[in-house]
Amino acid sequence: MDGAGVTRRRITRWSGDRREALDDPVAVERPLEIRIDDRPLAVTLRTPGHDVELALGFLAGEGLIRRRSDIDTAAPAPATCGDQPDSIDLRLAPGVRFDWTKLERHFAATAACGLCGRAHLESLRAGLRPIPMGETVDARAIAALPSRLRQAQATFLETGGLHAAALCAGPTLELQVLREDVGRHNAVDKIAGWLIEENRYPVESGVLWVSGRAGAEIVLKAAHARIPVLAAVGAPSSLAIELAEAAGMTLIGFLRDPRMNVYCGEARIRP
Amino acid sequence: MDGAGVTRRRITRWSGDRREALDDPVAVERPLEIRIDDRPLAVTLRTPGHDVELALGFLAGEGLIRRRSDIDTAAPAPATCGDQPDSIDLRLAPGVRFDWTKLERHFAATAACGLCGRAHLESLRAGLRPIPMGETVDARAIAALPSRLRQAQATFLETGGLHAAALCAGPTLELQVLREDVGRHNAVDKIAGWLIEENRYPVESGVLWVSGRAGAEIVLKAAHARIPVLAAVGAPSSLAIELAEAAGMTLIGFLRDPRMNVYCGEARIRP
Repeated sequence: MDGAGVTRRRITRWSGDRREALDDPVAVERPLEIRIDDRPLAVTLRTPGHDVELALGFLAGEGLIRRRSDIDTAAPAPATCGDQPDSIDLRLAPGVRFDWTKLERHFAATAACGLCGRAHLESLRAGLRPIPMGETVDARAIAALPSRLRQAQATFLETGGLHAAALCAGPTLELQVLREDVGRHNAVDKIAGWLIEENRYPVESGVLWVSGRAGAEIVLKAAHARIPVLAAVGAPSSLAIELAEAAGMTLIGFLRDPRMNVYCGEARIRP
Repeated sequence: MDGAGVTRRRITRWSGDRREALDDPVAVERPLEIRIDDRPLAVTLRTPGHDVELALGFLAGEGLIRRRSDIDTAAPAPATCGDQPDSIDLRLAPGVRFDWTKLERHFAATAACGLCGRAHLESLRAGLRPIPMGETVDARAIAALPSRLRQAQATFLETGGLHAAALCAGPTLELQVLREDVGRHNAVDKIAGWLIEENRYPVESGVLWVSGRAGAEIVLKAAHARIPVLAAVGAPSSLAIELAEAAGMTLIGFLRDPRMNVYCGEARIRP
């Protein structure tokens, strides 16, 4: 996380009746407008940094692009005036179709969640092809992830205000990429966008670790990226479990070394 | 929280190489479709329970309704088949205008957050009128909220999977209402909806406590309900602080008895 992710604020820390004024680090949250061929597509609140990844991952998670070559150029444009959002200008590659009418119907049914109009269970499940079994993963390596990744969460440690997501792979679950954001769905979108930039989306291997809970939208984003294992520090929801099952994923929650709860796909875990 | 908020799942709990199969409680997450005069307005993922409050609070937070009498009837319709979302059918009161074209523009710019197209900072701030100073609140009563409210969070204690929001008022900050949901914005919408049902929206008094972080969308919902104090167990974001300042609110974070950080509006806190 670069420096744009943290700012400092004058605060008063109370402890009983004792009061102390100090400058405290705070996680930055700012609007980002995603524009495609000069047309506004979406505004999301995010922590600045890795904005191109965020835009690419968001579009891939919505099924709107499939690979980096679908996009010709992706240009971040930081706000020039304090009251305008930052923006990402994407240009579609020649010949790539983008069904705006479908998109408008999609967004017309949306609300305060990352799932938009497709939240009907049937259509959520319909888009999921089961991920093949693939390689197994060592249980101890999974359980060790939270303590191993803590040191990589620079901004969280400083501000306490960010969610993190990380992709780990290989026999010892080496860290491939970690992203932080005030929005947990954004952190996962940035991971997906990183995979797209690396021409590895969908990836079909590895473990996606998230610092918080595993809700349905996190499972869907992992399923679209075809990451076979999702391991969350927090609790999963009932819908998250249903969708992970439908996607043939392994879903782990309450990951607290040496313990973890396995909700589905246990065959991928090797004692 | 009624029984619909929790289900049980067969899981395997790993602890090192020991494995134990058990039935574990899981927080329920399901889609809810909000319909107005038979027209779909939004689909949100939520924990079932208090769905009418959720719908009313969501609409009020978006500035679409102002009081209970704007709505004639509000009828929850649980799913009759497993794959359909639950729904809330709202009927506008005679004479109430509802600008769908404005709403469609609004949603057309939305994305994976609770803020939709209004996320341009200027328009976010523009809707906020400063909340009058009003009564002061005892610092010790605020600091004691997390431990006092923990026992009211029935489903969180059982599942570890829910956010909670509570409205407290009076000299000793008595609990007025507490709501839980997999989505933190939903829990706050349910509080707002409760105020609407009680004909007390906007309320202009009290403390809104939230179990997690205070992002911009939580501040906006509290500002629209005109709750003067927002106290969060977790961290605020930079935008949350900016919006709370613009709304003349008191914003408290990292609330962990006896400590708390005060980000703005400190004059309301009485040592």
